[in-house]
Amino acid sequence: MSDRNVYLSTIPPEQAVLLAKSALDRPRLIREETIPAHEACGRVTSGPIFARCSSPTFHAAAMDGISVRSSDTFAAREGSPVTLKSPKSFHPVNTGHCLPEGMDAVVMIEHVEQVDDATVRIEAPAFPWQHVRRIGEDIVATELLLPQNHTLTPYDIGALLAAGIFEVPVWERVRLTFIPTGDEVLNFLDKPTPKPGQVIESNSQVFRSIAASWGALPSWTAPVQDRAEALQAAVRQALADGAHIVVVGAGSSAGSKDFTRSTFEAFGEVLCHGIAVMPGKPTVLGVTTDKMGSDVQGRLLVGAPGYPVSAVVCLEDVLEPVVRWLTRQQSPGRQKIRARLARKTPSRPGMEEIVRLAVGKVGEGFVAAPLARGAGLITSLTRAQAVTRIPAQSEGLEQDADIEAELLVPPGGLEKVLVHIGSHDNILDLLANELMGLPEPLRLVSSHVGSMGGLTALKNGSALFAGCHLFDPATKDFNFPFLSKHLPGLDLVVLNLAIRHQGLIVAKGNPKGIKGVADLARPEVGFINRQRGAGTRILLDHHLDVAGIAPQLVRGYDREEFTHMAVAVNVLTGAADCGLGIFAAAKALALDFAPLAHERYDLVFPAAYLDDPRIKTLRAVIETPQFQERMQALGGYETTFTGRLMTPGFGLGE
Amino acid sequence: MSDRNVYLSTIPPEQAVLLAKSALDRPRLIREETIPAHEACGRVTSGPIFARCSSPTFHAAAMDGISVRSSDTFAAREGSPVTLKSPKSFHPVNTGHCLPEGMDAVVMIEHVEQVDDATVRIEAPAFPWQHVRRIGEDIVATELLLPQNHTLTPYDIGALLAAGIFEVPVWERVRLTFIPTGDEVLNFLDKPTPKPGQVIESNSQVFRSIAASWGALPSWTAPVQDRAEALQAAVRQALADGAHIVVVGAGSSAGSKDFTRSTFEAFGEVLCHGIAVMPGKPTVLGVTTDKMGSDVQGRLLVGAPGYPVSAVVCLEDVLEPVVRWLTRQQSPGRQKIRARLARKTPSRPGMEEIVRLAVGKVGEGFVAAPLARGAGLITSLTRAQAVTRIPAQSEGLEQDADIEAELLVPPGGLEKVLVHIGSHDNILDLLANELMGLPEPLRLVSSHVGSMGGLTALKNGSALFAGCHLFDPATKDFNFPFLSKHLPGLDLVVLNLAIRHQGLIVAKGNPKGIKGVADLARPEVGFINRQRGAGTRILLDHHLDVAGIAPQLVRGYDREEFTHMAVAVNVLTGAADCGLGIFAAAKALALDFAPLAHERYDLVFPAAYLDDPRIKTLRAVIETPQFQERMQALGGYETTFTGRLMTPGFGLGE
Repeated sequence: MSDRNVYLSTIPPEQAVLLAKSALDRPRLIREETIPAHEACGRVTSGPIFARCSSPTFHAAAMDGISVRSSDTFAAREGSPVTLKSPKSFHPVNTGHCLPEGMDAVVMIEHVEQVDDATVRIEAPAFPWQHVRRIGEDIVATELLLPQNHTLTPYDIGALLAAGIFEVPVWERVRLTFIPTGDEVLNFLDKPTPKPGQVIESNSQVFRSIAASWGALPSWTAPVQDRAEALQAAVRQALADGAHIVVVGAGSSAGSKDFTRSTFEAFGEVLCHGIAVMPGKPTVLGVTTDKMGSDVQGRLLVGAPGYPVSAVVCLEDVLEPVVRWLTRQQSPGRQKIRARLARKTPSRPGMEEIVRLAVGKVGEGFVAAPLARGAGLITSLTRAQAVTRIPAQSEGLEQDADIEAELLVPPGGLEKVLVHIGSHDNILDLLANELMGLPEPLRLVSSHVGSMGGLTALKNGSALFAGCHLFDPATKDFNFPFLSKHLPGLDLVVLNLAIRHQGLIVAKGNPKGIKGVADLARPEVGFINRQRGAGTRILLDHHLDVAGIAPQLVRGYDREEFTHMAVAVNVLTGAADCGLGIFAAAKALALDFAPLAHERYDLVFPAAYLDDPRIKTLRAVIETPQFQERMQALGGYETTFTGRLMTPGFGLGE
Repeated sequence: MSDRNVYLSTIPPEQAVLLAKSALDRPRLIREETIPAHEACGRVTSGPIFARCSSPTFHAAAMDGISVRSSDTFAAREGSPVTLKSPKSFHPVNTGHCLPEGMDAVVMIEHVEQVDDATVRIEAPAFPWQHVRRIGEDIVATELLLPQNHTLTPYDIGALLAAGIFEVPVWERVRLTFIPTGDEVLNFLDKPTPKPGQVIESNSQVFRSIAASWGALPSWTAPVQDRAEALQAAVRQALADGAHIVVVGAGSSAGSKDFTRSTFEAFGEVLCHGIAVMPGKPTVLGVTTDKMGSDVQGRLLVGAPGYPVSAVVCLEDVLEPVVRWLTRQQSPGRQKIRARLARKTPSRPGMEEIVRLAVGKVGEGFVAAPLARGAGLITSLTRAQAVTRIPAQSEGLEQDADIEAELLVPPGGLEKVLVHIGSHDNILDLLANELMGLPEPLRLVSSHVGSMGGLTALKNGSALFAGCHLFDPATKDFNFPFLSKHLPGLDLVVLNLAIRHQGLIVAKGNPKGIKGVADLARPEVGFINRQRGAGTRILLDHHLDVAGIAPQLVRGYDREEFTHMAVAVNVLTGAADCGLGIFAAAKALALDFAPLAHERYDLVFPAAYLDDPRIKTLRAVIETPQFQERMQALGGYETTFTGRLMTPGFGLGE
């Protein structure tokens, strides 16, 4: 625990961007180059572009018909036609043809009466330059066609070619090289299966795909071992290969094996270490100096955090503005919408925090459910439709707060999102996949907060529907007793999705012979529980109560997971001996299962949404035999009442 | 004028899309393929993707520090530390390390007091699983990672690799081939200089850049001559080369040389000919049948109009929805904003019309100025920030109408647009280029409607500023007399941009010996005028009046152009003998110039905008010596008062 780095004082990301900009000599680093115009879409002009040819270069017929002298036609009236003779007073022309000398108008073929091959009659006068595209009407030679620092669109490419511009001066693209590091990191190109302690390197490809969207030229290397010499050699090679920017993945924080900062110090100067944003803090910026020789001096060095979410923040909030500035691009920015926050979201003061959100339309407005916030949760990136920023001075956001959300998806897509907040079940995955197979696909965005959490979301109007499986021992009914108690006065509809089998998920072969709740009290049995408010936890508590077992006798009662699958994984890896969950989760991981109870898993939604086209679609999918067959194939589900609207007191229908 | 096609009844574009969809057998046309996951960004999954590995695959330290058994630490308090010994009760760990057997928490290095190599003290208890990333916390093996028909994002690529997915099933990309046609069309690859009657082919590259943005695989051929056999051979080759869709450029309307429809009939079936949208009408859709052999049957044939704006409408409104449907992509759609229309915009009933707009922020809201609407105006594509649609049943839009504008640019960019409506001057090009060279670039969007048109725009609040050069013979003053008369009560500021030289632009060598206004009455002199409301036309009228020449004596008085450069081009090509315009326009095209008058070209803007940061930037640029030098280099400008705020009665300051 010696030779550790210490963070320099952390600075806001915008300040890090300014530091990088002022340390780089932009005209020296990014040069002009001349490329074929037809290959230039997305590139940025490095100087003004003036038209070489006019367009059209001649007076051109704009319609198929005949060219005429307008003065010959002035007397034409309906019922009193003017007769014209070819070639003296008319010529047939097609669209685009050069107007013959002396002619100054075109009469559309539809308005021409053919008398014979050389004679026509028209019944309306042609005004001068009628249906004629005049010289230079579109583009005049020598005129400014496009200014400097303009990002070329597909349309611009057409204008360039039409104006006779076949080569354009543009800023060269920024070359970036990503160097992943870490002894535990496996190269994905080897298609490895990670052992405990190992991870598959993936940040290089996230980096590569994102940087390509900036119009940059990204490349990457194989993972480099945690040795100072190895990292230095890799950075040196990247610079020698012409990278304007070298990004070192991981190794940027203050651990004993973090060599990024010392490498940057060896090659130049460290500009900052640590940015005041969560996640993303362990970002290092440096610039090469003449220590490395003048040919590679003035290049940017970036130490990106190893955690995927932190790495993305470093790329998008620090690196992207610098790259766009280098190539004189204006950032497209993200569209911003207002949304209502579905859950209270505390945040540590002193640092800005970026929170990823699942967003969908519920009722008239947008609702944003904050996703889990671990820096290592790559699925929080894939599931997010937006982000929001909690300022450094804030202690967080209250539930129902009106927040600004920066969209990561096209705005139109939000109308096609179904927001589910509630209990987790594997059928929801199946449903999500079926909904994406529809002619008009719907995206199911699911936030797993347990059955009680789902009811709270319905109460707040923050979910379109809630998956719910709450058993009431007193009435032997499901869900309805909880609705009357917790959501009185709300007009809700309860739709059965399935009857499912809950039981104790145990290791293959059940080595500890766990057969029922009574076994949970055995000291050698390690349990993994579900979170507070989960219907499964309520079911466990009920069974413990019936068996007369105090929760504190169950070893691991306090260890919480949020999904059935996470419980099953704990059992699979031996981190726990058993947990309560659905049969489908045990089956998916080839674990054994000691059945405990059948229960109703229902979808609850406001009656007003029965007319919402998305809810109608959802119901239609649930009712298809195809969906129900796939559900049965998962195992542990009964579809007897699937799709049926439930009434109070129905229980399991027995 | 025989053997012409006749349009089938025109149908709305949405209906054309439906026809194409129902004529294509999607599963047969677009197959699944398996590609490396790290190359799959932007592709669309053809089936659900389930995680192969969990992430993490082990309980991992989430911080640098020591791993401990939480139960060993429960007694730790500030001032009452717990001492831990290695290796029995602690192990040093770095972020990402596998938690050693038996350990269930991590204490951050910052909270560890090192006593000796094997002994540490901590002053706070660790709760179970503190700073530990648990197995499957992010991804659980067998779980649905991504549904079918999902467009893969950069983040998804990271999730795939992290979950041990190295190959993904995706829909193959749509292969499109564009075949430009026309005897008059030159291949841009030959870098030609068009002669009268010729145009440089450019639509293929607009098509190619747009289709690439859909994730398709576009290719194109050299221009094909207007012969039925040549076109048939090209289409046959494109199909043989594997194109799913063949797009024939031009030749799709009803002219005698339009072979597209007959070619489609030879290869299969025509689905529709003519869509009810302006521009874009001459669109043909067809599908290959077994006439061509079963290996190429069921491919889509598209006849796209030849005019660039029409071609873009055909591509974006008809072809794009079909291509996205083929690859199961959801269209990102365009962001919509509300804007105020700067000018009355009539439209022909019976057809939807798509109008391109220059959009910028003026005051609190957005103002949209309709751009010129010729189907051949490629610059209306490059200058537009948005489009609006006038429905088929409408006769057009009134000035100041609150319209919906579909953005073609990122919304953030609109804040950085300067909307100029008024008189045209070549300095505006110079200014536009300078503004794009600033650290925070501004885009100058200029609508040329003449000086009087600019004043009207100021009155309506639809322009940020108006270029204006209106001479009042009674007072010998510029602009102010017109402001008091037409915009009384408005608090306006008048900023001089330059004094400029107006005169008669004549052919090189002045073959007709045109020296002054008197020569315009000579019958052999053909004149080209500016549009009504242009300051230059008002200047002409004044000089004709002084010379006692009636406008009807000037041949060509009724022929109008909208810019100085367009007037100059008419002279250059011999379409007119002379026109009134600025020296800079004559010089740009190496024409001769007979001076007539000096005049003040001013920028007029509301006094309230003096504080608008964009106006401040504009003024700062105008005041730079660099800008003024460049202006002088154009010729015909004096910068004596450039950048000065003018007062009434100043005239030319003489």
